Amino acid sequence: MCGIVGYIGTKKAAPILLEGLKKLEYRGYDSAGIAVLEDEVIQVQKAVGKLTNLENKLNGSAPCGCIGIGHTRWATHGKPSDENSHPHQDCAGEFAVVHNGIIENYLALKDRLSKSGHHFCSQTDTEVLAHLVESYYEGDLEEAVRKVAKDLEGSFACAFITRKEPGKIVAVRKDSPLVVGLGEGEYFLASDIPAILAHTRLTYVLNDGEMVVLTKDKVTVKKACNGEIIDKEIFEVKWDAVAAEKNGYDHFMLKEIYEQPKAIRDTLAGRINGGVNLDEVLIDRQLLKEARNVTIVACGTAYHSGLVGKYTIENLARIPVEVDIASEFRYRNPLVDEKTLMVVVSQSGETADTLAALREAKSKGAKVFAITNVVGSSIAREADSVLYTLAGPEIAVASTKAYTTQLAAMNFLALALAEARGTLEKEKIQEIAEAMQALPAQIEKVLEQAEQVKAVSEAIKEWENLFFIGRSVDYAVAMEGSLKLKEISYIHAEAYAAGELKHGTLALITEGIPVISLATQEQVLDKTISNIQEVRARGAYIIAVAQEGNEEIGNYAEVVLTVPRTHPVLTPLLAVVPLQLLAYYTACVRGCDVDKPRNLAKSVTVE
Amino acid sequence: MCGIVGYIGTKKAAPILLEGLKKLEYRGYDSAGIAVLEDEVIQVQKAVGKLTNLENKLNGSAPCGCIGIGHTRWATHGKPSDENSHPHQDCAGEFAVVHNGIIENYLALKDRLSKSGHHFCSQTDTEVLAHLVESYYEGDLEEAVRKVAKDLEGSFACAFITRKEPGKIVAVRKDSPLVVGLGEGEYFLASDIPAILAHTRLTYVLNDGEMVVLTKDKVTVKKACNGEIIDKEIFEVKWDAVAAEKNGYDHFMLKEIYEQPKAIRDTLAGRINGGVNLDEVLIDRQLLKEARNVTIVACGTAYHSGLVGKYTIENLARIPVEVDIASEFRYRNPLVDEKTLMVVVSQSGETADTLAALREAKSKGAKVFAITNVVGSSIAREADSVLYTLAGPEIAVASTKAYTTQLAAMNFLALALAEARGTLEKEKIQEIAEAMQALPAQIEKVLEQAEQVKAVSEAIKEWENLFFIGRSVDYAVAMEGSLKLKEISYIHAEAYAAGELKHGTLALITEGIPVISLATQEQVLDKTISNIQEVRARGAYIIAVAQEGNEEIGNYAEVVLTVPRTHPVLTPLLAVVPLQLLAYYTACVRGCDVDKPRNLAKSVTVE
Repeated sequence: MCGIVGYIGTKKAAPILLEGLKKLEYRGYDSAGIAVLEDEVIQVQKAVGKLTNLENKLNGSAPCGCIGIGHTRWATHGKPSDENSHPHQDCAGEFAVVHNGIIENYLALKDRLSKSGHHFCSQTDTEVLAHLVESYYEGDLEEAVRKVAKDLEGSFACAFITRKEPGKIVAVRKDSPLVVGLGEGEYFLASDIPAILAHTRLTYVLNDGEMVVLTKDKVTVKKACNGEIIDKEIFEVKWDAVAAEKNGYDHFMLKEIYEQPKAIRDTLAGRINGGVNLDEVLIDRQLLKEARNVTIVACGTAYHSGLVGKYTIENLARIPVEVDIASEFRYRNPLVDEKTLMVVVSQSGETADTLAALREAKSKGAKVFAITNVVGSSIAREADSVLYTLAGPEIAVASTKAYTTQLAAMNFLALALAEARGTLEKEKIQEIAEAMQALPAQIEKVLEQAEQVKAVSEAIKEWENLFFIGRSVDYAVAMEGSLKLKEISYIHAEAYAAGELKHGTLALITEGIPVISLATQEQVLDKTISNIQEVRARGAYIIAVAQEGNEEIGNYAEVVLTVPRTHPVLTPLLAVVPLQLLAYYTACVRGCDVDKPRNLAKSVTVE
Repeated sequence: MCGIVGYIGTKKAAPILLEGLKKLEYRGYDSAGIAVLEDEVIQVQKAVGKLTNLENKLNGSAPCGCIGIGHTRWATHGKPSDENSHPHQDCAGEFAVVHNGIIENYLALKDRLSKSGHHFCSQTDTEVLAHLVESYYEGDLEEAVRKVAKDLEGSFACAFITRKEPGKIVAVRKDSPLVVGLGEGEYFLASDIPAILAHTRLTYVLNDGEMVVLTKDKVTVKKACNGEIIDKEIFEVKWDAVAAEKNGYDHFMLKEIYEQPKAIRDTLAGRINGGVNLDEVLIDRQLLKEARNVTIVACGTAYHSGLVGKYTIENLARIPVEVDIASEFRYRNPLVDEKTLMVVVSQSGETADTLAALREAKSKGAKVFAITNVVGSSIAREADSVLYTLAGPEIAVASTKAYTTQLAAMNFLALALAEARGTLEKEKIQEIAEAMQALPAQIEKVLEQAEQVKAVSEAIKEWENLFFIGRSVDYAVAMEGSLKLKEISYIHAEAYAAGELKHGTLALITEGIPVISLATQEQVLDKTISNIQEVRARGAYIIAVAQEGNEEIGNYAEVVLTVPRTHPVLTPLLAVVPLQLLAYYTACVRGCDVDKPRNLAKSVTVE
């Protein structure tokens, strides 16, 4: 992950860099640092921990120069520490570099550089960049960076400054995002658009293999391989910067949980007209009809949306669906070809593993359908067709509204497949589409149980371990519920297919341990209740999530959280909501930093 | 689960029943009980907890009658307690019944019986059987049991006695196992053969829907539906009873871990001749060649063997493989048909969910290939073809040698598919087959590291949570390693695809937490090391499992356990061994009952 920024212009760089980093903190916050050119000297300031530490350090003593680069770190190589913080420098302190990504061959490079006399002072992969540029520099930073880029294996978006050419920033990217903001007499560099939105809406979005040279007067985008100038199109950002504020909620996560009705309404808008209207998505109808199989690839929460998608698509469209973790898919020589409908899911559209999986699938001839929340993201640009979730910016690291809108997108895909393949009558499609339109109001109803969920969080807050169980699509929802709780409350929650517990994990059930039991699926309700009985017989404290009107479940659970009735394939959109709230309130009552859980970052752009 | 026994003859029943139950304790040990007919009175004795509690209770005061039934319980409905223990009785104490299985409609039956005046004193589903037989009895126990069976939904193997017909035991089965031992002037009844092996090797193995009437002089097997007599074939057991002894090891589990070289040698014997010789298995070669896909269904450890199987089969035979948890497969209207090669895996061959999945697949036209360890088990009998793992009886609840022999079976299947489909050259097949033959000696070498593993168990013993990570097939092995540790040491271990941790679970990594990192796969070694770095940067204590000669891994791990080099698809058979030892030693050092972990049972014959 990590976030990088850069500024060149006539104002003081330091405050602009800090402000930009603040907007990128969702990309990591293990440490932060800036490097500013002042009187032909590079002033570097770094601090481990969140950005406020750096701000406090700079208070009153910030460098005054008008050119600089900055970094917020999510540690991969080397612990969070001052010396491992970016920017990194060469032996003589004449260059500074910030980097997002992973240099896979850094050990070999480090070895080579050490042998020729370079001295390293951090455990990072990044530091090789500073020494490399030092070793290649012959009076032209641009030329030296080009040589550096040629040496690198892995992923990188990095920006360099040098005291030898004090009016210049040179940056280059491969597999990590980078945008340039075009101001008047000033230019900005950042990993993501929010960091520059306070200054300009006009941007260049760099592609892989592109580099950019910034001076006070000019921005030039070039091919990194040969320096050839690229005539870059300006991308005008139309987002509302205010949309990224907390809006009165204590945390972004809670705000985003409550935004779900709107997010789903937006995602459904214009796409339901009797049946499903996905014209804008440009999906190949022939492929929908003739695909032999569907492969869904994603990471984390998006992967969990894929598990629900498998259930829904197989159920409605009767086509086999495989769901795979992106980091696994890529390295298993997967069986996909032109007869495969490949689906990738990523909120940010920049998830490195998912992007790599997309490329792997394309290289094997598969057509890629992307579900993402970020217009113009790498995944959106490289997919054959894109269904955007219209969830708006998601800031909290723990994904909520992105997940439920991904589920809505999966439903659209399932219905489109069912329609194209004739596996569902028109009336059935219409019925499900109508049920989808009722979801926003139904989620509002679920949210009214917040106080009850808060009480449950009091009951579970002391437990360091607990379990989620469910059968059928409830199992997929249980996985997402457990991930939420893990991410932000640091409780080791694990989800199990309810019928599978007795094959081992039942040994972990002790007196009083909370077991959150999803029981929304009518056709397996009896079996689920049998499994609830099994854990209850061993002392488990049962918190059930069930459909309204299910009176029986009360006999087997200490607490029942209810969700309105809907079509069985749509229940996940409702059932996950109390689990999101539970994770949120539990994290709050345990005193955790909800929006910035330890060790995590929002947009995972490394493997 | 649960185990039932019965005896009718001229000796005192109580000691024979107790001895039989001892052999069935692997089926559950929440409580035990016996009912013996003495002077036309039914003497019932029960005790919660392990069988020794019952033995102590009976010490000096055991009933003297020569007819009786007994039970060892694995709780499903109602907590382990004296009143929930079997045998159960009717209101007047004139009948006694023991039962293995689940009566799914017991609430409705209980309601009906209560309304007509029956009084219940337990929370079990089983007690309805006693009251039902009371309500139907009109002078003929056999007739009454037949009526009872008609009322039941669910699974059951149950045995009845009554003081009104003191010379008779009547038993009936559906979806739970039941065997009759044929002695001279005495007969035995049991859930499984070990319970009767001390007395006889001649048996009747009952099928679903069969009942049996035992008197001192005669055994009659009948159809439960209409009482029609069945001419049952005698099955002679050829096992060695001594094989089920601990053989000097402290626990069955350790003994079974060390039996793996022999178990694999036995499983390979006669099946490798240049290529793979599976003639005896009677697998349809046409199907091997033409199958459109493979679906592997299993539970627990066997499910994990399926995950390795997917990797191996897709890799070698380039045919898509889906692996599903049996309890999930059954209820998702799975996409299987006559073009599917369905593979089911079960050590006992009696796993209820897997058996149900087998039937579901057959009803959809799929051909079923079974991998099981028990000759003549329900799954073996109902499958179209069977590959027996020759692991010998596995007594420890935590499966070890069954798992590694299942892996060997998966390799056979993958090679047979690759051969039939022409995806692998003859030399390649031969090469892998030869590498398989080296495995037993290689496992012996891994076992030599026991002392080193013991030291690791000291390092992790205080942790209540830890993680396993791995990429590719190492991830599947990580899942099995974590299950072993969960089952017997009660540490909440969870396995993650190494690349997936950063999408949430990384939040649980704190200073010092053990992360057991599988790194045997050359092609993803760099990526795995990057992931190890991520958790290490957050303080994790790394225990690596890597191939001999991997020098690099030592830079990133506190401890490295090594396995000999072999073909990449075979590494799981070696890599799992240190993990089995680790679970074993950790459980020992934590003072856990290794062979009988709490809440679990060996053969899971309920859903």
